[in-house]
Amino acid sequence: MTISGTSSQSLNRRLRLGMVGGGRGAFIGAVHRIAARLDDRWELVAGALSSDPGRARESGADLLLPPDRIYGDFLEMARGEKHRDDRIDAVAIVTPNHAHAPAARAFLDAGIHVICDKPLTTSRDEAEQLAKLADQSGLIFAVTHNYTGYPLVRQAREMVLAGELGQIRVVQVEYVQDWLATRLEETGQKQAEWRTDPSRAGPAGSIGDIGTHAFNLAEFVSVQEVEDLAAELHTFVEGRPLDDNAHVLLRFASGARGMLWCSQVAVGRENGLRIRIYGEKGGLEWHQENPNVLRFAPLGEPPRLITRNGPGSGAASRSASRIPAGHPEGYLEGFAQLYSDIAEQIMARMEGREPYPLSLQVPTVEQGIRGVRFIEAAVRSSKEGAAWTPI
Amino acid sequence: MTISGTSSQSLNRRLRLGMVGGGRGAFIGAVHRIAARLDDRWELVAGALSSDPGRARESGADLLLPPDRIYGDFLEMARGEKHRDDRIDAVAIVTPNHAHAPAARAFLDAGIHVICDKPLTTSRDEAEQLAKLADQSGLIFAVTHNYTGYPLVRQAREMVLAGELGQIRVVQVEYVQDWLATRLEETGQKQAEWRTDPSRAGPAGSIGDIGTHAFNLAEFVSVQEVEDLAAELHTFVEGRPLDDNAHVLLRFASGARGMLWCSQVAVGRENGLRIRIYGEKGGLEWHQENPNVLRFAPLGEPPRLITRNGPGSGAASRSASRIPAGHPEGYLEGFAQLYSDIAEQIMARMEGREPYPLSLQVPTVEQGIRGVRFIEAAVRSSKEGAAWTPI
Amino acid sequence: MTISGTSSQSLNRRLRLGMVGGGRGAFIGAVHRIAARLDDRWELVAGALSSDPGRARESGADLLLPPDRIYGDFLEMARGEKHRDDRIDAVAIVTPNHAHAPAARAFLDAGIHVICDKPLTTSRDEAEQLAKLADQSGLIFAVTHNYTGYPLVRQAREMVLAGELGQIRVVQVEYVQDWLATRLEETGQKQAEWRTDPSRAGPAGSIGDIGTHAFNLAEFVSVQEVEDLAAELHTFVEGRPLDDNAHVLLRFASGARGMLWCSQVAVGRENGLRIRIYGEKGGLEWHQENPNVLRFAPLGEPPRLITRNGPGSGAASRSASRIPAGHPEGYLEGFAQLYSDIAEQIMARMEGREPYPLSLQVPTVEQGIRGVRFIEAAVRSSKEGAAWTPI
Amino acid sequence: MTISGTSSQSLNRRLRLGMVGGGRGAFIGAVHRIAARLDDRWELVAGALSSDPGRARESGADLLLPPDRIYGDFLEMARGEKHRDDRIDAVAIVTPNHAHAPAARAFLDAGIHVICDKPLTTSRDEAEQLAKLADQSGLIFAVTHNYTGYPLVRQAREMVLAGELGQIRVVQVEYVQDWLATRLEETGQKQAEWRTDPSRAGPAGSIGDIGTHAFNLAEFVSVQEVEDLAAELHTFVEGRPLDDNAHVLLRFASGARGMLWCSQVAVGRENGLRIRIYGEKGGLEWHQENPNVLRFAPLGEPPRLITRNGPGSGAASRSASRIPAGHPEGYLEGFAQLYSDIAEQIMARMEGREPYPLSLQVPTVEQGIRGVRFIEAAVRSSKEGAAWTPI
Repeated sequence: MTISGTSSQSLNRRLRLGMVGGGRGAFIGAVHRIAARLDDRWELVAGALSSDPGRARESGADLLLPPDRIYGDFLEMARGEKHRDDRIDAVAIVTPNHAHAPAARAFLDAGIHVICDKPLTTSRDEAEQLAKLADQSGLIFAVTHNYTGYPLVRQAREMVLAGELGQIRVVQVEYVQDWLATRLEETGQKQAEWRTDPSRAGPAGSIGDIGTHAFNLAEFVSVQEVEDLAAELHTFVEGRPLDDNAHVLLRFASGARGMLWCSQVAVGRENGLRIRIYGEKGGLEWHQENPNVLRFAPLGEPPRLITRNGPGSGAASRSASRIPAGHPEGYLEGFAQLYSDIAEQIMARMEGREPYPLSLQVPTVEQGIRGVRFIEAAVRSSKEGAAWTPI
Repeated sequence: MTISGTSSQSLNRRLRLGMVGGGRGAFIGAVHRIAARLDDRWELVAGALSSDPGRARESGADLLLPPDRIYGDFLEMARGEKHRDDRIDAVAIVTPNHAHAPAARAFLDAGIHVICDKPLTTSRDEAEQLAKLADQSGLIFAVTHNYTGYPLVRQAREMVLAGELGQIRVVQVEYVQDWLATRLEETGQKQAEWRTDPSRAGPAGSIGDIGTHAFNLAEFVSVQEVEDLAAELHTFVEGRPLDDNAHVLLRFASGARGMLWCSQVAVGRENGLRIRIYGEKGGLEWHQENPNVLRFAPLGEPPRLITRNGPGSGAASRSASRIPAGHPEGYLEGFAQLYSDIAEQIMARMEGREPYPLSLQVPTVEQGIRGVRFIEAAVRSSKEGAAWTPI
Repeated sequence: MTISGTSSQSLNRRLRLGMVGGGRGAFIGAVHRIAARLDDRWELVAGALSSDPGRARESGADLLLPPDRIYGDFLEMARGEKHRDDRIDAVAIVTPNHAHAPAARAFLDAGIHVICDKPLTTSRDEAEQLAKLADQSGLIFAVTHNYTGYPLVRQAREMVLAGELGQIRVVQVEYVQDWLATRLEETGQKQAEWRTDPSRAGPAGSIGDIGTHAFNLAEFVSVQEVEDLAAELHTFVEGRPLDDNAHVLLRFASGARGMLWCSQVAVGRENGLRIRIYGEKGGLEWHQENPNVLRFAPLGEPPRLITRNGPGSGAASRSASRIPAGHPEGYLEGFAQLYSDIAEQIMARMEGREPYPLSLQVPTVEQGIRGVRFIEAAVRSSKEGAAWTPI
Repeated sequence: MTISGTSSQSLNRRLRLGMVGGGRGAFIGAVHRIAARLDDRWELVAGALSSDPGRARESGADLLLPPDRIYGDFLEMARGEKHRDDRIDAVAIVTPNHAHAPAARAFLDAGIHVICDKPLTTSRDEAEQLAKLADQSGLIFAVTHNYTGYPLVRQAREMVLAGELGQIRVVQVEYVQDWLATRLEETGQKQAEWRTDPSRAGPAGSIGDIGTHAFNLAEFVSVQEVEDLAAELHTFVEGRPLDDNAHVLLRFASGARGMLWCSQVAVGRENGLRIRIYGEKGGLEWHQENPNVLRFAPLGEPPRLITRNGPGSGAASRSASRIPAGHPEGYLEGFAQLYSDIAEQIMARMEGREPYPLSLQVPTVEQGIRGVRFIEAAVRSSKEGAAWTPI
């Protein structure tokens, strides 16, 4: 457990984080900040928090950033930080999708590790160029598919890896919400505005915003890659240019079959990310709205309820837990786990040692690319009448 | 509520039921018998309970049938009953699928109402010929899609009809089991044997056995017809000639979209029939493993838990309930409801009156045909790589 | 499983049941009739269905009883049946509480087995005299603490008996409803009227109506007797002469401790009978509103969900099940199990053999006495300020 | 929502926190640190983290405290901080129970606000003296009954205050665990050691450790005070000097009745703190293991599921939430809410304004005293055979 304090003893300081995006009125930026803070391995010291310079300044002041590290834009920030002795160890990019790639490039160029929100980019080409750049740089490039930070998601993956399910047959995954069941984007709600605007969100609506999370979870837990998909994207709310519901059939390279459903119009559902996975020898089920329990059914035996940090949960779950079983951890702790793992990776480099192996589960630019390829395949398949399309 | 006794006062007797199939070792026949008995409107008086004459005789004796009404086969029974004064009012056909049609024809010819298990037949042509015959006969022809007898399934349908969900957008339905996760049919288990044998089950495995139930439920609750589907059928257990898992995309005539998943290899799932349906104004969710609660989420309000016969449940639920809310009713009571409704229909005819309107919700040969068309479309679509196929 | 038909082959007939009480407007009588019918071992052939002769006659006609076996009162019925060749095998007494004892005596005198609703009587003296009479008669005397018929309640008891929990430490039991949260008895509702009227219900309200069920369940599952209790009875609804809520501390003879809560004013609760039992080596939890799952937590291992007739459920559960796991059974099936077990006991006597051992789990007059002693102790303890009082 | 950043803008700095106790191997100290950090209103700058000076030093270094503010004991720390310009704004006392009072006195004397873990002290006299001292000092004295920080606990209280339940009738509260089901204190487990040692834990085991939380929750949500109780404390694990299970009857001053059960031997239960509260007009139920949903049943209507920050949740819930409904918050966020509210109170004083009203819900020394009085009453009642005892 990471609870007993920072593990940065040898470093004798917290890691320094900068942030691009996430100013006043933003949602995910604030989540990243809590996540970075929670396990006490990071401190936020610099930011280009808005594309609007005034708001960037005010937002920086809100967060008690030193005035000389409140930047007007990400280029200025990359330049400004590059040559400081106390420069940031990593940058968190939490802008709308279309700005991910340019910002990431700027910081890679400056030799700074990157933590980027998903989806990685708005096109596959851009994603692949970015990956190449990341590769060449040798820097850490994490993509915050944050649900992989949930202890019991990791427990599930470990159980699949350990063969407790046998050969995987079926993977059902869904992420359903209702916040876009009406035309919220017309009301001035910022989150809704950019997420339904192709110029900022890219070519995908629900499939990009939440479908990618579901897709990432399916591959992460099953330890299988999807090879082909057949997708039916649909827009239910009139006048909305992007999909708000998607149904996708999945064929995994291993022969497993699956389904993915994402929706932002499922009235009565808030953040219903759920995965169910069945193999020859067992089944696993997990739901992010009640994330502290994993249902495991071994073939021919009664299902078991494995709780986070409780009996039957192993190293992957325990090392990502802070508090005892029965005391719920949630979304922020799962997100924090990525930040702690990235810190571990960075510190291991600084100290010339191997990082703690489980810290390497953080999604990288590779998973980022998978997400973008998934989006493109889904959009293309849907346009062709749900034709089977390779990812 | 039907609890206070038989409603056959005016008739002054119970209705007389005959049964084809359902002898020793069968499952669904015994369920039909309990269902017929439960509300005290029927008595079983005749049977051709097995295609094996010896077993037919022994099974009839088990059930205390009068010896002269224990028949060696259904033809003999249809002939034998046709001219009796106390002839059966209806016959229940509970054989494997391939025998439904010939038996049904025999009893229609004898002027006897038919209650037939699903799927109606093993081919669409046969189903349509049977429907024509049923039509011409003017007799009642019920198909036991028994999940429509659950009080809260009816409640859900009523709410859709009353517009409480607004225009329907998404219908998610699934029926998942695990009893065929291994090669059970090799162990001598009768149920598994015929259900995985194309000569008795027809061209479909899971999609016919349980997929049709899910399909029927989707159309029943949504009050919408599926127009096209794209299906991916798969067999996971080696050597099994029929599908044991199916993923299906659905397009409804109204523009709604949906998904159907059925599986007999989902380890840890027993009889997981679940429907979730979302409209512009609300969402409904129901699960047959916990059937006494219906989750209803009106847009922008907290979800409500409507219990069978509890606050917020209306006539459709109450009239299909026997006991107070909080005392669970289950599968047998839901099945019994069909028998009570069929009794009501028959008695109304005898008495020259209109039946109680809700009793007309029992699926008929028309729904039986829909099920067979669904199977054929799914099989064809799957062969053509999940091509969109009209039902 | 009992599904495959009546087991009365050797007898070659169904058992004959008479009923006292349970006419038009009654609740529990109709439940008893369904319960008797469900497994096809009984037929109702006689009745004194109401204390009002006109209603008795009409109710008998409703149920298609032969006119000569529709009796005006229970004495007439006991006399009338006593000397018939085809006399009833057993009588079900389903009147309000105060009439249980006189009716039971009449049928014991007539040499007829008795199935009596709970609480057995309205006083301990009466209960003990009745028990003596029953003993002397050598007849079967069953008391319908129907929750003992639930398959997983029996499973729980078997697990306790098998030592899977080790020495029992804590037993928490509750039965909570809300139907008397307002003054329903003033509205003409018959059930509420007699249950809140001391002249018919006896000295206890909720503690007698549902507390006795909870108490019975606690002793049945724990296989322990309560030695002393400290009770706080309370009436929340003004003007009601009997308790509508009770809190009781329990000390078991074995040293275990427990609590019992019953309430008829717990708004939002319908029939919340729940038991939780913890021993040195494990814990068990069961809830009658979702009765097809039993939660079993072995010390230091993940909790398991044992389903009725599913993996991990043993003979006690399976023999009381009709249909496969995942198809819910409910209240009526649990009640029916008592009738089937009583039938088995009667037939075993007729056939001069030992009954199937699990059929002997049906509560008898002894458990009936325990219930009445529990009521009296609770009422007395409460009057004395929750003083510890022996049962 | 507090997510968008620190609200200490006007102050232009974070508040400074010191900590007594909570060094290496401790549990609750680390929780307090995360809680203080989570909403970015505090920074930890000083500590006397262990009664062992060496461990105190190492623990301080772990946490990157400035060397001159790592103190050997709390007296040294109170003296050392008192006169600094940048002295701590508040101290968190997270030692075993017996050390709470002396440490609190030292910091009150130094003019420093106090945040103290529960139970406040090990005797009522000590608690009342401390309260007097706190009163005289005019300082803030918060007691971390952390469950009051859960958004939906606050929502429940608001609904009671708003009369949505009408007059309260019944309050059922429980806190059940299993971690002391065996003699864990013999294995070297520090938490178990001191909690079962009267010299450090005081006169109560489970009733002090978790019973006080349950008691506090009952009074907090019901907005009623318990007047009398009747308690049965018991020790199931041989050789343990303090209770590990307690059953308590409650009488509220308003006439409401209730029950409290706490246990550390309930095998299969982790941190099962649950409250159910019923009034004339409605019922509420909440469970800390799934804290993001509150079940609200208005009389005669279907129960509603109010989610944290979801439809139907009001200001009390929303202002204590960080992220959207459906993304679970947990134990740490609830704990953090207390720290944020205390920060708000302190800053309001600094700024000469009224604090945000909901921030005043943080339990104070008054609730601390209630807890200690509850413990003493329960211990005394139990010794006298569960005699009714005033609190």
